[in-house]
Amino acid sequence: MIRSALALLLLVPFALHAQQASPDLSDDALAVAAQLRETALAGSGAYALVESLTTEVGPRMAGTPGDVAAVAWAKAAFERNGFDTVSTQPVTFPAWRRGEERAAVLSPFPQPLHVTALGLSDGTGGTPLQAEVVEFESLQALKDAPADAARGRIAYVSLRMERKRDGGGYGIAGQARTHGAGVAASKGAVGYLLRSIGTDSDRLPHTGMQRYPDGVARIPAAALSNPDADLLSNMLRRGQPVTVQLELDVGTQGEATSYNVIGEIRGREKPDEVVIIGGHLDSWDLGTGAIDDAAGVAITMRAGALIGALPTPPKRTIRVIAFANEEQGIVGAKTYAAAQDDAAIVRHRIGAESDFGAGRIYGFATSALPAASEATVQQIAAALAPLGIDYLPGKGGAGPDIGPMAQRGMAWGWLAQDGSDYFDYHHTANDTLDKVDAAALDQQVAAYAVFAYLAAESDAGFGSTPQTPPAAD
Amino acid sequence: MIRSALALLLLVPFALHAQQASPDLSDDALAVAAQLRETALAGSGAYALVESLTTEVGPRMAGTPGDVAAVAWAKAAFERNGFDTVSTQPVTFPAWRRGEERAAVLSPFPQPLHVTALGLSDGTGGTPLQAEVVEFESLQALKDAPADAARGRIAYVSLRMERKRDGGGYGIAGQARTHGAGVAASKGAVGYLLRSIGTDSDRLPHTGMQRYPDGVARIPAAALSNPDADLLSNMLRRGQPVTVQLELDVGTQGEATSYNVIGEIRGREKPDEVVIIGGHLDSWDLGTGAIDDAAGVAITMRAGALIGALPTPPKRTIRVIAFANEEQGIVGAKTYAAAQDDAAIVRHRIGAESDFGAGRIYGFATSALPAASEATVQQIAAALAPLGIDYLPGKGGAGPDIGPMAQRGMAWGWLAQDGSDYFDYHHTANDTLDKVDAAALDQQVAAYAVFAYLAAESDAGFGSTPQTPPAAD
Repeated sequence: MIRSALALLLLVPFALHAQQASPDLSDDALAVAAQLRETALAGSGAYALVESLTTEVGPRMAGTPGDVAAVAWAKAAFERNGFDTVSTQPVTFPAWRRGEERAAVLSPFPQPLHVTALGLSDGTGGTPLQAEVVEFESLQALKDAPADAARGRIAYVSLRMERKRDGGGYGIAGQARTHGAGVAASKGAVGYLLRSIGTDSDRLPHTGMQRYPDGVARIPAAALSNPDADLLSNMLRRGQPVTVQLELDVGTQGEATSYNVIGEIRGREKPDEVVIIGGHLDSWDLGTGAIDDAAGVAITMRAGALIGALPTPPKRTIRVIAFANEEQGIVGAKTYAAAQDDAAIVRHRIGAESDFGAGRIYGFATSALPAASEATVQQIAAALAPLGIDYLPGKGGAGPDIGPMAQRGMAWGWLAQDGSDYFDYHHTANDTLDKVDAAALDQQVAAYAVFAYLAAESDAGFGSTPQTPPAAD
Repeated sequence: MIRSALALLLLVPFALHAQQASPDLSDDALAVAAQLRETALAGSGAYALVESLTTEVGPRMAGTPGDVAAVAWAKAAFERNGFDTVSTQPVTFPAWRRGEERAAVLSPFPQPLHVTALGLSDGTGGTPLQAEVVEFESLQALKDAPADAARGRIAYVSLRMERKRDGGGYGIAGQARTHGAGVAASKGAVGYLLRSIGTDSDRLPHTGMQRYPDGVARIPAAALSNPDADLLSNMLRRGQPVTVQLELDVGTQGEATSYNVIGEIRGREKPDEVVIIGGHLDSWDLGTGAIDDAAGVAITMRAGALIGALPTPPKRTIRVIAFANEEQGIVGAKTYAAAQDDAAIVRHRIGAESDFGAGRIYGFATSALPAASEATVQQIAAALAPLGIDYLPGKGGAGPDIGPMAQRGMAWGWLAQDGSDYFDYHHTANDTLDKVDAAALDQQVAAYAVFAYLAAESDAGFGSTPQTPPAAD
């Protein structure tokens, strides 16, 4: 009883504040947002965009012909969807290619293994790599091992990623992908194998970025599918030496250029102030990039398009960005952020991205708390609530493509997607259209349209303030 | 009320019969069966056998080095499991091999396609096949098409298999795999593509046998994964010509020999009379053959082993058969049946096989009804009931490897497995150990042990009577 009464008392100041202050967002704006929400739920058109991008372009790894086709697709799609302006921004990065990749246990139990090279891995050259495998239960165990623990061998990290709605298992497991090859090389390894960072049990390995640190050998690095990792661990458990052959015809050579593709719905009062939403246009090469991230591009493009189709545009500009090359280092987003001066940071009122699959949105938060924009954020949260979206103050964060701008000081919004099955398909050949539900996309378009429209109507803003970003890792 | 009373009256004759007649199976035999059941449920050891075969041998397509290793594995496993005799029977068949296989859409939307050749397909030779695709919604639609409906093109059948517990969707859909290439060739096609006969949405195509009829071209035949079939159909729906390139380095050359591997628990009274149970030792090459059919081999081997470990063996012999080359034409089972004379058919009291994955058994029936063995079958059904197994008289049938003996007149028993997810993995790379549940295997070992033991104790028998089998198709 005492605790309940206390909770009630604590709520009073907010309630009084909301009643007394002149609301930032007008009843008219809230009515428009409600209309956007219902329009999206009735059929947002996002699924058709995902179908189009995955069918007519398909795999679009940065720097490949598919990427070129995707840029052309995005420009045409923004134009077809009624954006006021469509522009591109060049983005340059190391060109990585994937050719054939094969692995097999040679002894004691000859069997093929399903592997895929990690992004930016070097290949095995003309001669297949043959070496004994040494297993480590985690990246930490590899780090803690003696200096020559993997001397002349293939280091294999077998940690299995946990399934969580918010993808929370990705962080710790993902470190073994990003940094494992470098650590393995520092222990004398000649190759690196990793249990896929994925929650599935399909025989489809998960690719993804890795980075070589300076000062160690650039050893070939690949992921095993979960069933193949089980198989290898089961062989190793028998205590006999296990020799694996690895052939990866992959590598980095020269540079490639792609483009951030940007569509704008021009604001009616302060068009130089912008709310940015977006996803990334590139994908890995193994699948057709339906959930990663055709869905995000389609959701935010259709949210922008629905706002563009209103009789009256919002006060400020809605800028939808299909970012280039997220997968190999968030290159498009970094390029975008690097082009902004401090004044431009202030003009970026807030940003949000969709890059966590095609599952429904269940939560909302922003970086704007605790701040003057609390009442505005509460108004937006209330407009999102009919979509089954809970307000989760203090949770969330900027996604990868909003990250560089957030580091510069731009406020971020977080529309939390249910990612329970995201890591079943993430970065695999299985990232295909059949994993996408049209009604779930409609709900997400509704959320992005409501969020972006109301954010663009807000005069209070969300506190974007120039910061000096921390040094890159 | 009337209907209930009637039902009760109808039951009376059976009850009287059971009370009056001297029961075929003694209380002692039923007590032993109950003990076998509980022993198996407490931990049958079948999972360890599946783990061993899939880990130490893995893929074992008939005629490959894996198959040779599997035969050695099975002999050693029968011996290790205490069988009284272990023997082999040579089985000869055409040698089919699979090398690289690739496909891609060349235009209008260049993308790779995930395919796998159908078993016994010819390859594309040194030059990749390039042709326009023409879609048919079913094998029947292809059959009904004009004589030149696929002239110079790749015929593509896009029917999707339905998911059912008893695998009932396999029959109609499977026809398109077995006979589609021949029908396509008769319509002038230069290649044949098929939506995988599978209920999953994974990007792993399902292989499986096909047969070329006489008098038509032996065109290359391959299955697309379900997501790839969706993709191809979505491209074709746009109305533009779709050109596909197909490269299949596969083919049949010469003959190979493998072996049925047979273990026996010798009967105490009539050792020349046998109950046969078994699964097939070979697998397709794409997966490790965990559910198809390491599970069946392990279940029946452990059922036999538990019977062999009894203080007193059953009256008749338990013969466990690990059949050779089921996948490419039921060759081992046909060889086994061809070696039996009519007197031997009578000595085969009954047979049952496990070849429908690793799911629990939910039903039981035999071919022995209506016959003198009704009371015996009821006793066996009662002994299976505590395992959650319903008696389903009139249902079921002999499986593929029991089929040739059933055609010769041997009685069959049917232990119906839940195959709801069987066709998610069947004949794909995804047929791996992680799809197998140890407790479900224990339940199945319990069922096979109860069935085989009581069948071997039965003096009434199940009506095996020599028949003239119908001509082979």
